[in-house]
Amino acid sequence: MDEITFAVLGTGGIGRRALEVSQHKDALTPVVACDRHGVAVDFDGLDVDELLAATEGNIDNEVATDGGPAAATAAGGVKQHGEQQGVVASSQARPSEEPIQEIIDRGDRIDAVLLALPNYEHDFIPRTADRFAEGGYSGVMIDVLKRSRVIDMLDDRSEEFEDAGITFVCGAGATPGLLTGAAALAAQSFVEVTDVDIHWGVGLKSGYEDNRGTVREDIAHLPEYDIETARDLSEAEIEAIIDDHDGVIEFEDMEHADDVLLERAGVCDAEDVTVGGILDVRNDEKPTTTTVRVTGRTFDGETATNTFQLGDETSMEANVNGPALGYLKTGVRRNRAGEYGVFGPADLMPGF
Amino acid sequence: MDEITFAVLGTGGIGRRALEVSQHKDALTPVVACDRHGVAVDFDGLDVDELLAATEGNIDNEVATDGGPAAATAAGGVKQHGEQQGVVASSQARPSEEPIQEIIDRGDRIDAVLLALPNYEHDFIPRTADRFAEGGYSGVMIDVLKRSRVIDMLDDRSEEFEDAGITFVCGAGATPGLLTGAAALAAQSFVEVTDVDIHWGVGLKSGYEDNRGTVREDIAHLPEYDIETARDLSEAEIEAIIDDHDGVIEFEDMEHADDVLLERAGVCDAEDVTVGGILDVRNDEKPTTTTVRVTGRTFDGETATNTFQLGDETSMEANVNGPALGYLKTGVRRNRAGEYGVFGPADLMPGF
Repeated sequence: MDEITFAVLGTGGIGRRALEVSQHKDALTPVVACDRHGVAVDFDGLDVDELLAATEGNIDNEVATDGGPAAATAAGGVKQHGEQQGVVASSQARPSEEPIQEIIDRGDRIDAVLLALPNYEHDFIPRTADRFAEGGYSGVMIDVLKRSRVIDMLDDRSEEFEDAGITFVCGAGATPGLLTGAAALAAQSFVEVTDVDIHWGVGLKSGYEDNRGTVREDIAHLPEYDIETARDLSEAEIEAIIDDHDGVIEFEDMEHADDVLLERAGVCDAEDVTVGGILDVRNDEKPTTTTVRVTGRTFDGETATNTFQLGDETSMEANVNGPALGYLKTGVRRNRAGEYGVFGPADLMPGF
Repeated sequence: MDEITFAVLGTGGIGRRALEVSQHKDALTPVVACDRHGVAVDFDGLDVDELLAATEGNIDNEVATDGGPAAATAAGGVKQHGEQQGVVASSQARPSEEPIQEIIDRGDRIDAVLLALPNYEHDFIPRTADRFAEGGYSGVMIDVLKRSRVIDMLDDRSEEFEDAGITFVCGAGATPGLLTGAAALAAQSFVEVTDVDIHWGVGLKSGYEDNRGTVREDIAHLPEYDIETARDLSEAEIEAIIDDHDGVIEFEDMEHADDVLLERAGVCDAEDVTVGGILDVRNDEKPTTTTVRVTGRTFDGETATNTFQLGDETSMEANVNGPALGYLKTGVRRNRAGEYGVFGPADLMPGF
C-alpha cells in the first residue's frame, strides 16, 4: 500500500499509543500530533520517540471541550512537568491557539486524521468533523468512540461528508471496532443472528495514569452517572469511586456503539446486542477474558454460537490501537477509491 | 445495498447450497445456474426451490475438465435420475453445448459470477477467468478454491483483470475465506504475527452425497495423492480410501491457500501458517471444533494468542456459503467503486 500520512488529535493515552504502534506498521507516517495547547508538525515524519519521551507524565487528561466552560473548571486535570503543558513539552511542538485549524489548513497533505479524544462531550467529534468538512478537508477521519448516540450524529452528516470527500470511520478501537468486526465476521455462518454478546476485561494498573480519560468515560456508563455528570467529576471524586469499587468496576448493558454499528451493517438489530465488561485499575491481569459470542440460525436450521476471544496478554492499548490504525488504512483505501460518507468497522467486513 | 444479480457455475454441493443460502440474504438475486450439461437463466430471479427439487439426487459430481479427457472417463460420476443430466433436470434449464459462453454473452446483466467448482484441475478457474476477461465481462468473479498454487495463477492475471474491469475474489469459502478473514482480524492486536494455526472439523454424513467433489479434493491433500491422481480415482476407489480410514480422514500441513492469502494481506509469512483438519463422512457431528489461533507479539512486548471458534452445530455448507455470498457482496461494492484485480478475503479486512 502507498505511504499514508496521518495526524493525531489528542495526545492522551490513545493518541500516544497510536503514535507508538504506528512505528510498527508498514506505510504509516505520523506527521501531526496536537492537543489543545499546541501542535507538532513534520511532514517527513514526527520523531515519535522524542515526542513520547518529552511528554511522558505530561498527559492532558483535562475534560477538554474546545472552549466550553468545562475547559476552565477542569484545567487541574493536566499533569504537568516542566514549563509546558501537553504536547508542547516536545521540541517538535509549539504552542497554538487554534491547533485544529492548523491541521485543517494542512489537510491537503494529510491522508487521515485520528480523533484520539476519549472524554470530550458526546457531540465534540461530530462538531470537529464539521469543522474539517467546512474547512475543505477531503480525506479520512477516524475515531475510537464508544457511544451509540454519536453514530447517529455522524450519520446525519453523511451527505456533508460525501460532498466534502471525507471517509469517516467511526468506533474503530477495540470495542466497537475490533469486536464488532469479529461479530460481523462470525455472523457469516448464519442467515439470522439472534444474539451478540460482547464482554470485555481490562486490567489497567500500569496504564492507568495514561488512561484517566478512558476511565472517566467508563464511569459515565455506571447507572448512577452519565456523560455530563462524569465530565464534571474531579480527579479526587473519580479516585473515590474507584475506591468504593476496590478498583474493580463491573459494567452491564453499556450504551456502546457496538449495537448501532452491527445494525447498520445489517448483522442484527441493535437490541440483540449486549455489551458489558470488567475494569480493574489495580491489576494488569485482565479480570475476565474479552469474548464475543455470536449466536444465530444457519440456513439448514441449526442454532449455534461462534466465538472470538482475545488473549489475556493483549493489553487494552494493543487492542485499541492496532485495529484503529488497521481501519485507518482501510479507510484510506476506500477514500482513494472514491468512497465517502460514514463507515462503521463492520461495514468494512464481508457484507452480511 | 442495491440489488445484486449473480450466476452460479456448477450445481454440485457448493453451487446448490449457494443458491439456497442466497434466498436468506438481502439484495442477492440468482439469475443464472449452469453445469456442463446446460444452463438455467431468469433475470427476474431463478425459482431456486424448483431448481433444487428437480435436480436433487442428480448432482454432477464427475471430474469435469471443460472438455479435457477426464470428462469422458469420469462420466460415470453423474448420479442421474430422469431423462436429463445435472441442471437440465430443472424446467428452468435447457441443454447447452457452451454454458460458460452463454453466461459471458449475458455478462452485462450479471454483477457477480460464483465459480462453485471444487474438483476441477487446478488451472481450470484461472482459464475460465481468462474466458470471461477475453469475452468482455466486467464484474465480480469469486471462487471458493483451497489450493495455494491457484492464487499465484490468478495474481499473474491481475493486470488482465484490471484492464477488463474484473474484481476477482479468490478463496472465499469457509477456509481460506472465513478463517483467513478471522485470522486477519485477530492479527490486529499484534505488531508481529508469529504463527497462525487453522484446524477444521467437518462432519459430512448427511451432506456426503452432495459433496463428493469436495471429498475428492480433500483426498488429494493426503500424502499418497495429489490433485491429478485424485482426479483419476473412481468413485469405488474413493469409497475404498474412506473405508481404509473408517470414515475419518485426518489432514496435516495441507496445501491450503490460507498461507498465501495471509501473506499477500501482509499478516504474516506463508510459512507461519499451518492448516489441518479432520473429515468424518460417517457422522454429522464434527470430529473437532474448527479453530483459528493467531499468535503474535504486541507493541508493548507481550506474546498472546487470539482465538476464533466456529460453533460445532454450524455445518461446512453454512460456513462455506455464508462467507462466499458475503464476500461476493463486498466484491460487488469494490467493483462498483472501480477497484479491479485480485482480492483475497483477508484483503477485504482491516489492513494490517
